[in-house]
Amino acid sequence: MLNGERKIERPLRWGMIGGGRTSNVGYKHRLGALRDNTAFRLVASAFDVDAERGRSFGENLGLEASRCYPDYKTLIAEEAKRKDGIEVVSIATPNGTHYEITKAALEAGLHVICEKPLFFEVEQGEEIVRLAERKGLIVGVTYGFSGHPLLLQMRQMVSNGDLGDIRMIELQYTHGFNADDTGDKHSEGQKWRVDPKIAGSSFVLGDLSTHTYYMSRLVCPNLRVEKLLCDRQSFVKSRAPLEDNAYVLMRYNSGAVGRMWASSVNAGCMNGHRIRIVGSRASVEFRDNQPNELVYEIQGQPVQTLIRAMPYLYDTCNADERLGALHAEGLPESWANIYLKFAVAIDAKRRGDPKTLDELVYPDLKAGVEGIRWVRNCVRSADAGAVWIDFQ
Amino acid sequence: MLNGERKIERPLRWGMIGGGRTSNVGYKHRLGALRDNTAFRLVASAFDVDAERGRSFGENLGLEASRCYPDYKTLIAEEAKRKDGIEVVSIATPNGTHYEITKAALEAGLHVICEKPLFFEVEQGEEIVRLAERKGLIVGVTYGFSGHPLLLQMRQMVSNGDLGDIRMIELQYTHGFNADDTGDKHSEGQKWRVDPKIAGSSFVLGDLSTHTYYMSRLVCPNLRVEKLLCDRQSFVKSRAPLEDNAYVLMRYNSGAVGRMWASSVNAGCMNGHRIRIVGSRASVEFRDNQPNELVYEIQGQPVQTLIRAMPYLYDTCNADERLGALHAEGLPESWANIYLKFAVAIDAKRRGDPKTLDELVYPDLKAGVEGIRWVRNCVRSADAGAVWIDFQ
Amino acid sequence: MLNGERKIERPLRWGMIGGGRTSNVGYKHRLGALRDNTAFRLVASAFDVDAERGRSFGENLGLEASRCYPDYKTLIAEEAKRKDGIEVVSIATPNGTHYEITKAALEAGLHVICEKPLFFEVEQGEEIVRLAERKGLIVGVTYGFSGHPLLLQMRQMVSNGDLGDIRMIELQYTHGFNADDTGDKHSEGQKWRVDPKIAGSSFVLGDLSTHTYYMSRLVCPNLRVEKLLCDRQSFVKSRAPLEDNAYVLMRYNSGAVGRMWASSVNAGCMNGHRIRIVGSRASVEFRDNQPNELVYEIQGQPVQTLIRAMPYLYDTCNADERLGALHAEGLPESWANIYLKFAVAIDAKRRGDPKTLDELVYPDLKAGVEGIRWVRNCVRSADAGAVWIDFQ
Amino acid sequence: MLNGERKIERPLRWGMIGGGRTSNVGYKHRLGALRDNTAFRLVASAFDVDAERGRSFGENLGLEASRCYPDYKTLIAEEAKRKDGIEVVSIATPNGTHYEITKAALEAGLHVICEKPLFFEVEQGEEIVRLAERKGLIVGVTYGFSGHPLLLQMRQMVSNGDLGDIRMIELQYTHGFNADDTGDKHSEGQKWRVDPKIAGSSFVLGDLSTHTYYMSRLVCPNLRVEKLLCDRQSFVKSRAPLEDNAYVLMRYNSGAVGRMWASSVNAGCMNGHRIRIVGSRASVEFRDNQPNELVYEIQGQPVQTLIRAMPYLYDTCNADERLGALHAEGLPESWANIYLKFAVAIDAKRRGDPKTLDELVYPDLKAGVEGIRWVRNCVRSADAGAVWIDFQ
Repeated sequence: MLNGERKIERPLRWGMIGGGRTSNVGYKHRLGALRDNTAFRLVASAFDVDAERGRSFGENLGLEASRCYPDYKTLIAEEAKRKDGIEVVSIATPNGTHYEITKAALEAGLHVICEKPLFFEVEQGEEIVRLAERKGLIVGVTYGFSGHPLLLQMRQMVSNGDLGDIRMIELQYTHGFNADDTGDKHSEGQKWRVDPKIAGSSFVLGDLSTHTYYMSRLVCPNLRVEKLLCDRQSFVKSRAPLEDNAYVLMRYNSGAVGRMWASSVNAGCMNGHRIRIVGSRASVEFRDNQPNELVYEIQGQPVQTLIRAMPYLYDTCNADERLGALHAEGLPESWANIYLKFAVAIDAKRRGDPKTLDELVYPDLKAGVEGIRWVRNCVRSADAGAVWIDFQ
Repeated sequence: MLNGERKIERPLRWGMIGGGRTSNVGYKHRLGALRDNTAFRLVASAFDVDAERGRSFGENLGLEASRCYPDYKTLIAEEAKRKDGIEVVSIATPNGTHYEITKAALEAGLHVICEKPLFFEVEQGEEIVRLAERKGLIVGVTYGFSGHPLLLQMRQMVSNGDLGDIRMIELQYTHGFNADDTGDKHSEGQKWRVDPKIAGSSFVLGDLSTHTYYMSRLVCPNLRVEKLLCDRQSFVKSRAPLEDNAYVLMRYNSGAVGRMWASSVNAGCMNGHRIRIVGSRASVEFRDNQPNELVYEIQGQPVQTLIRAMPYLYDTCNADERLGALHAEGLPESWANIYLKFAVAIDAKRRGDPKTLDELVYPDLKAGVEGIRWVRNCVRSADAGAVWIDFQ
Repeated sequence: MLNGERKIERPLRWGMIGGGRTSNVGYKHRLGALRDNTAFRLVASAFDVDAERGRSFGENLGLEASRCYPDYKTLIAEEAKRKDGIEVVSIATPNGTHYEITKAALEAGLHVICEKPLFFEVEQGEEIVRLAERKGLIVGVTYGFSGHPLLLQMRQMVSNGDLGDIRMIELQYTHGFNADDTGDKHSEGQKWRVDPKIAGSSFVLGDLSTHTYYMSRLVCPNLRVEKLLCDRQSFVKSRAPLEDNAYVLMRYNSGAVGRMWASSVNAGCMNGHRIRIVGSRASVEFRDNQPNELVYEIQGQPVQTLIRAMPYLYDTCNADERLGALHAEGLPESWANIYLKFAVAIDAKRRGDPKTLDELVYPDLKAGVEGIRWVRNCVRSADAGAVWIDFQ
Repeated sequence: MLNGERKIERPLRWGMIGGGRTSNVGYKHRLGALRDNTAFRLVASAFDVDAERGRSFGENLGLEASRCYPDYKTLIAEEAKRKDGIEVVSIATPNGTHYEITKAALEAGLHVICEKPLFFEVEQGEEIVRLAERKGLIVGVTYGFSGHPLLLQMRQMVSNGDLGDIRMIELQYTHGFNADDTGDKHSEGQKWRVDPKIAGSSFVLGDLSTHTYYMSRLVCPNLRVEKLLCDRQSFVKSRAPLEDNAYVLMRYNSGAVGRMWASSVNAGCMNGHRIRIVGSRASVEFRDNQPNELVYEIQGQPVQTLIRAMPYLYDTCNADERLGALHAEGLPESWANIYLKFAVAIDAKRRGDPKTLDELVYPDLKAGVEGIRWVRNCVRSADAGAVWIDFQ
């Protein structure tokens, strides 16, 4: 159980790029990073393309005006000059800019925490892997839903064999907020997502399904997709070639099979993010709109609802919970758990502690690159006419 | 609202083939047909391959011993000799026998009500279509879930455009009762389902998904599958080549797309039969374990739960309900609705009333043949390596 | 598991008084009684105060016109003259008439099945007890929800001590259909319920809570109310002195306590009929809008959902189910179970089989009288200013 | 929508008394207060009766060792000497100590945030009201569930008349964690709760129902209890005279009625904290285990589920939300909202801004005193034999 006590010697000096006043996700970064003031301390920022707005926003968060920079290059350059400059930076800018900013930050010796999908090209990812390795730096990826404690319960149920042999992975991340094109035209946060130049080769595959794909990797680390088939549609025509709906079929190395449904045109759906693992003996299912419960269905037995923080859960699950049973956690707790692990990873890296790094389960650079790979394979299959391809 | 008053001049004289003491589905036929004693009267039977057991069972249901026949051929032959012989017969025998019994019954001038999946071959279906037409007889198919009143609500919501343009059809019929092979070895009702000689070329596609496919046709009569792709697995190896799990992707004539998941190895799943229709404006979803509710989700508005029998539902929906709101209907009410329509169809046929026949929505011979066609196309795609094929 | 086979030698000849074309509950009687045609056969009726409508309705149900009588007195008199006259009669008339009709039927040697609340006065009930005893006749009461199989599961869980010592009984039967007075003015079925001359001294206490009180007696037969306190309101003023909302607190002989909430002004509530039993170790809860599920909560363990017809349930529960798991039962199955037990009771009485009568659990005359007593005590407490009284 | 930007000029210097390493609720205070680092800054503490443990804990949270005091008296005295001493202190100690600590803190010129139930005696509350007024200081009470944005939606629905006239208030806060006495014997956090010397005259009435009672006051500010009746039990005998279960009936000034059920022996219940408001036209219900949803039931219309952050909600509700729709908030967000309002209140008080103070809706001293009054009246009724009393 977490209670805010420090897990590392002192908080890391932290900066943010993007994620300013109008950003929805930016606040989630801060809610996660600053939860207990023992993991990160926000000291610098380049919040906004509108430099003035970025500065005013930073000041309202308690930053010194002089450390609210107009752009990421200045941020990196100026902080590098300070003795107490930032050690780690989070990137919450549109997808198309992740690669260059990550690269610049790493080259300046900063640890990086980056929004998903990490980059556009697998090759970019591989380059960054090499760069980070060479520099001895951590890159974390904010798969923000993956910090819910009950996902660790699922992970251990799978590894313990509670479910029997895994047969099916059922993945879904769907909502309906883009059922029409209002947002495409009027929402700052949505416009760039349907512009291939900024968003890359996909919309919902990159934006939504990378989250859920990572969650499946977290829960079933031994299953690897060997083949997949993707069919994607642009129901709002102006979004073509970017999809607003996609179906994926998967075949895993073990003989298991799976499906993914990613959609932002599942009209009215407010409960559409779930992961279900079906084994030969039992199934377990998680939905992110009620992250305090798992449904555990053993064939032939009563349906069970497992509830966060109860003593019957595995210790690895309860280690990450904060409130005790009866008290609902939400998404900010998930982000806080991920950010805490970023801090622990950075600290371990700095201290040269490979054992901690080895045992730590968090969305790392490898997971980020795998997300790029996932999207690339899906798009490749879809563009070839929704055919089966080898997962490369 | 139904209250049991007769819809036809007098009850039809009805016989049953199969569906005896050990049959689970046989009782559903009787619960449906005999609901009000104004549509059917059970007067003859060939309930069982064990003739003695069949006779004893028939007597316990109130049949005359002399009309409890040892097999279907005797039933048909002897009843034909009586002035008050049966007019219609229901067939609840293993799938492999449906074709020959249906043919014999039609040739003897009997209307037929047959279990799904109707036959193995589309060609058999087409032959029976011609035969039934020539004889002026009705063939009904017991897609037993399709009589729930709220499905008619969905149908009218779709046709009225309440959902906008239909974009996605999400279909699922899954349970976990065959997660292991215990039933294959020990259950009379299960054994033949995994024997290709008796069950045909499929297990769950025929056994489960034909129900759900028909429900989708009922709700969206104007959508036709143009292409599909099916991947099927035999997780319990001894079932091969018959599948215990199948995924299907569909593309419809209108540009809509869809999915089907059929499975009897979705371990522990007790709530796995659903149909969701996603439109450009709203979605609507039905689950058969709570047939008194629909979830209606209009994008941007509160999620609505529509409840059976409430005055805000369409008249075509409430016309088929029996109990008033607050009082739960179950599966027997669905079967009763279907059987009532079979009776009305038979009566209309007899009276030469094409208008009634034309307007009546029920699972007819055509729907049964389409079920065969569905399975054939799925199997054809799967056997070709899970590739896209034209729906033929 | 029930499958329609006869439980008694031959169906009983059955008549109905009330419950005609415009009656909602009348159909529930027929759905229950005629389920399998092996328990009852409907042969005579006095369906309606409008004799012509009653006759036409009866004919539409398949009755002979000559046995569709204009009123209950004629029904009783004429049927008594026939060799094949009715043996049992159901009474589904307004509450104020139950007593005189029951008395007349018993005096004519008929078994009686009567709607709840049975009569107005406990003294009437006691008189009828003596009369029925003297005549050797059965009186059953249609507490129609009490036939759901899962209530027998609860009963056995309680008696087996699965819950530990019983501490609390939480009862609720509420809906909102009378939130305004539209029904009072315009609905035939509602008007008399708020007229003290026809409905007696209570509205929702008699109409709703007697059902739920009986269910609590069924589930916890050893608990007896020793003291209660009732506060009742007439939110729609024109209903005074009859209540449209009532709260009751109870103290049981064992030290357990309980609550009842009866209301027809719980606006919008569509899921308001439930019974929860809290023990020292676990709780179990049933709601009638999903009669196929029980929630079973063992303190410190995952929440369990028990599902009808599953093999892990007690045999006494599954003995009364008809469809197998995955297939939803509704209210008509509950009524059918009760009516089947009425038939078995009548048959046992006729055969002089006290053992069967002794073991049979069904809503009998004693349960009906206890319902009257419940209402009387509630009204007495409420009228004294909502004070604690001894349950007499 | 909140995004962490400051609402007051600079963060308040904040201390904590109690709520140390083994305290469950202490972390909730910090999660609330420190959410954005723009409202409070934790600078001093007296966390623990074990001074050493308290100091080590404080240091792990980032406090200076010299400001981790051994007890509250030292904390107050030493901080008073500093120029940068604390301005406000939170009290999270056992109930019996709240009064003396609050008094001491106020006398030292500190604003106070105190756990519920505030004190034991209404007279103590009234004394503190006068003291706080004289000193010009704020006292807030951590009714921690009351900060969920959807409660403000309910409040405005009530005040706008969306529900019609309010008729019933249904309140419940129950769980089963004290179904046996294990916790009484072994849990530090539970022991004192069943010791009248430390916990006062009640267990669950003070510990649980004061939360829910405040929520009802928040949602329905114009309803006042005029009479109530309370029946309480000690199912675990060793707890007597403190109750582990209590039922309360209420009559409000407007003619509305209500119920409260408080229990820590509702075995297995994990979803037992709810507030339902029933009006003449509609009802609305909130449960704290899913604080992102309201059920809104308009009589005669489909049941609606309202979801946090959706644009169809009232502005006053969405003003307090942080994450956008689809992203679940939990209990920490509720605490953060309350603490933010404490900061705004303290700031307004300091600045002499009565308008802000007037408009601000938060659990203030008056609400705390009303909680004491609630418990006192409940106990008085219960101890008099569960009789109706005037609410004084």
